[in-house]
Amino acid sequence: MNRTIDLNGDVGESFGVYSLGNDAELLSYVSSANIACGFHAGDPATMRRTMQLCKERDVAIGAHPGFADLVGFGRRNMVLSPQEVFDLVVYQIGALQAFAAAEGIRVRHVKPHGALYNMAAKDIALARAIAQAVQRVDPGMILVGLSGSQLIAAGRELDLPTASEVFADRTYQSDGSLMPRSQPDAMIHDAAEAAARVVAMVQTGKVRSQQGTEIPLHVDTVCLHGDSPHAVEFAREIRNELRTAGIDVQPFSPVD
Amino acid sequence: MNRTIDLNGDVGESFGVYSLGNDAELLSYVSSANIACGFHAGDPATMRRTMQLCKERDVAIGAHPGFADLVGFGRRNMVLSPQEVFDLVVYQIGALQAFAAAEGIRVRHVKPHGALYNMAAKDIALARAIAQAVQRVDPGMILVGLSGSQLIAAGRELDLPTASEVFADRTYQSDGSLMPRSQPDAMIHDAAEAAARVVAMVQTGKVRSQQGTEIPLHVDTVCLHGDSPHAVEFAREIRNELRTAGIDVQPFSPVD
Amino acid sequence: MNRTIDLNGDVGESFGVYSLGNDAELLSYVSSANIACGFHAGDPATMRRTMQLCKERDVAIGAHPGFADLVGFGRRNMVLSPQEVFDLVVYQIGALQAFAAAEGIRVRHVKPHGALYNMAAKDIALARAIAQAVQRVDPGMILVGLSGSQLIAAGRELDLPTASEVFADRTYQSDGSLMPRSQPDAMIHDAAEAAARVVAMVQTGKVRSQQGTEIPLHVDTVCLHGDSPHAVEFAREIRNELRTAGIDVQPFSPVD
Amino acid sequence: MNRTIDLNGDVGESFGVYSLGNDAELLSYVSSANIACGFHAGDPATMRRTMQLCKERDVAIGAHPGFADLVGFGRRNMVLSPQEVFDLVVYQIGALQAFAAAEGIRVRHVKPHGALYNMAAKDIALARAIAQAVQRVDPGMILVGLSGSQLIAAGRELDLPTASEVFADRTYQSDGSLMPRSQPDAMIHDAAEAAARVVAMVQTGKVRSQQGTEIPLHVDTVCLHGDSPHAVEFAREIRNELRTAGIDVQPFSPVD
Repeated sequence: MNRTIDLNGDVGESFGVYSLGNDAELLSYVSSANIACGFHAGDPATMRRTMQLCKERDVAIGAHPGFADLVGFGRRNMVLSPQEVFDLVVYQIGALQAFAAAEGIRVRHVKPHGALYNMAAKDIALARAIAQAVQRVDPGMILVGLSGSQLIAAGRELDLPTASEVFADRTYQSDGSLMPRSQPDAMIHDAAEAAARVVAMVQTGKVRSQQGTEIPLHVDTVCLHGDSPHAVEFAREIRNELRTAGIDVQPFSPVD
Repeated sequence: MNRTIDLNGDVGESFGVYSLGNDAELLSYVSSANIACGFHAGDPATMRRTMQLCKERDVAIGAHPGFADLVGFGRRNMVLSPQEVFDLVVYQIGALQAFAAAEGIRVRHVKPHGALYNMAAKDIALARAIAQAVQRVDPGMILVGLSGSQLIAAGRELDLPTASEVFADRTYQSDGSLMPRSQPDAMIHDAAEAAARVVAMVQTGKVRSQQGTEIPLHVDTVCLHGDSPHAVEFAREIRNELRTAGIDVQPFSPVD
Repeated sequence: MNRTIDLNGDVGESFGVYSLGNDAELLSYVSSANIACGFHAGDPATMRRTMQLCKERDVAIGAHPGFADLVGFGRRNMVLSPQEVFDLVVYQIGALQAFAAAEGIRVRHVKPHGALYNMAAKDIALARAIAQAVQRVDPGMILVGLSGSQLIAAGRELDLPTASEVFADRTYQSDGSLMPRSQPDAMIHDAAEAAARVVAMVQTGKVRSQQGTEIPLHVDTVCLHGDSPHAVEFAREIRNELRTAGIDVQPFSPVD
Repeated sequence: MNRTIDLNGDVGESFGVYSLGNDAELLSYVSSANIACGFHAGDPATMRRTMQLCKERDVAIGAHPGFADLVGFGRRNMVLSPQEVFDLVVYQIGALQAFAAAEGIRVRHVKPHGALYNMAAKDIALARAIAQAVQRVDPGMILVGLSGSQLIAAGRELDLPTASEVFADRTYQSDGSLMPRSQPDAMIHDAAEAAARVVAMVQTGKVRSQQGTEIPLHVDTVCLHGDSPHAVEFAREIRNELRTAGIDVQPFSPVD
């Protein structure tokens, strides 16, 4: 049973004059932050400011690479070769590392974004491409992926540190995959229910699927969303319930 | 008097299906290569392949950051704040560093591209922004700029190692600036004349301006162009004349 | 003395998941709308939706072409040749015209955006490039520019219909140019004062400069901003004061 | 049996300083040209110059819209909604139409590019989105698609004029689809064989599949490629054989 857990959130997704999310608020609740790297969102100025904000808040920093699809926010599947995926992940990690270096800190994890995250959860070739990119750039970085996914498997193949992610506001199918958003019961809308599920997942290493079966889940980190209207309420409730249950919130990367 | 000199060339300026320059040929002649970083030219796959080619040829690697103006190839002046310039230089250096890390090598110098190079030669605020970006990311990197320019001055202010660049195929004005390309005598078209000028510049630390005056020039590196039709002929002639004069061609960054 | 005036506003400046401005609100106050065309802001989906919204509200439609600088929102000066400016204006007008054709309506005016607008106000070569682009694509379109600017002059040279624009929330210098935003008294922050100035400009064809001189101004249209916090208050106040003064708000393009 | 046939080729696929294909040469052989519209290739300056070249050569002009994937040259599948596809096709057609208007000519056909072409050949929802875009912008334009494809079917549903395309250098499977490029016998490498196949397809309305069956094919236009090394030889041979067979080469859009 976990006595500590990480909470992670996506930040730095503004672009130019366009503002998205409430990073300052979200950073009050998470222990790890995934910073967009300029392909699906983010731009050099936003990356610098977000890096500085994370440093001030003492939040662990990760790269959040995505497809080169700004207008689609990296949420549209693109059919790339594993080599193309390797290349774009290397590029984006590096761009973020330079902003970390400029602040005297380092990038501790990598979590793919959007369509890249979802495709790499199921496609071992893409998953390996991402894992190799992480390993080749800095094998000390932690690869974050959906709990039970091919991405986690690929990271383990390469002996990368991995962090298995679960979602506070999503339901699961009996095969351990997330219920697709197209389904009516895909989302959990009640903050108290979400918080209770998170505590249970952390304590038991299991979640109850919508089909009623118990699914074993490795749980290293819980994803909090920053752009939904109830994001802050969810985050606060989850932190409160974890504290009540005696579970500490800490970054998933203790070793440096 | 220099007993060694660096020859540098711009490489990795292809993009997607578009091929530009003859990197394999140019890399036979230069000791240092400036790799485009995806803003004015280059893309992640091109960066990786170019990095690998430079590694095979044992050529020292530098970042070649430019304005985010692919259609204009980074040759069109853009009015950016120093902060914006700092940010885009940090970003691009980092992206390239990750490909270097993936190959187990490192980025040793930074040379701005095109309009950014030219603007930073004259504008001390932009020059300082670039120098600060280099220093904040890795103060061991060498800043390459036009000999006598504000960019070199800014690098020295920050105690960065600098490399002063001269051009084999360009003429100079009496204030030490390059004759604008709009002038009829801006370019040297004869390879033998260019080679003789390079040797003289290296040996004497001076160049004769088009107005007939002798201009003192610091000379650490000579720029060879890869995309002109006579590039290879120029490069071969310059290397030959340097050898005849007993001057070794070596990267400008002896210390690692 | 004008008995009618046009009010215009910039709309369609969202991009992908990023939302900017309050188009639905702004369209309640303007008679003409300038729709971003995908270079400085806007994307195909946003252009279609904005076109449909303008059609529902019966607001006259114009193209709002800008520099290809999404991260800078087209507000950063770029040094382009007149031919390059011609080309990018043709391209952007056409892209918007297709969405108008798809809705069975037409694009009636062209107003350059941001840095392109400001540069073309002073640089006759750029101004002519824009005017020629408009004329070559559809000589019935109205060219909108700063009152007294080179852009208006260029439009008149080509016998294009033109519309001279004044600003409700900006002060003027004695040469008829706008007070730069860097000056403390560049902006008018009080809605009542702005409205009174607009009515006076429309009625008298003059404005008082910050130096106290009376400047003659051609006034065909007044620019309302959509993204400032007080935009709606300003718009409402201006419309009210115009109504009180017996001045009708109508598109500046009566002939079709 | 056809007495005339159209030959079409892709042009205007250069970008900025990057040159691709040999448009001047290819335009000597084709009767219709598909001009890239800036998303997968092309830029405003290239579009203008290509338009002017087509006008000089009296070649019929078409829009060649593709996915917004410059680095992948529009050849990588992207999962877009039909609405997104509609929007990007409208945008790109319009951009090209404006350059046609500037030259006093018109865009006569639309042929999707690369991955969009291939996806729309099989996916009726995407095919309908493209057909609707064409119809809404100008229902007089001809929709060009793979012979027997869903795209042709979608055009016919909307009563659009359509042109069915066959390939001179590709082999067919017994279901009428192209042999995938991954197969060893996908390409025809001999110009004489390709020319003989084209003449036979035009004369008989049939092609022999690699499995040996005769497949009926509607044949309005034959695609010539401009970027392969043997493109010119193929084009010359095909024109010669068509002439010998008494088949005129003419644009597929006789009605204006």
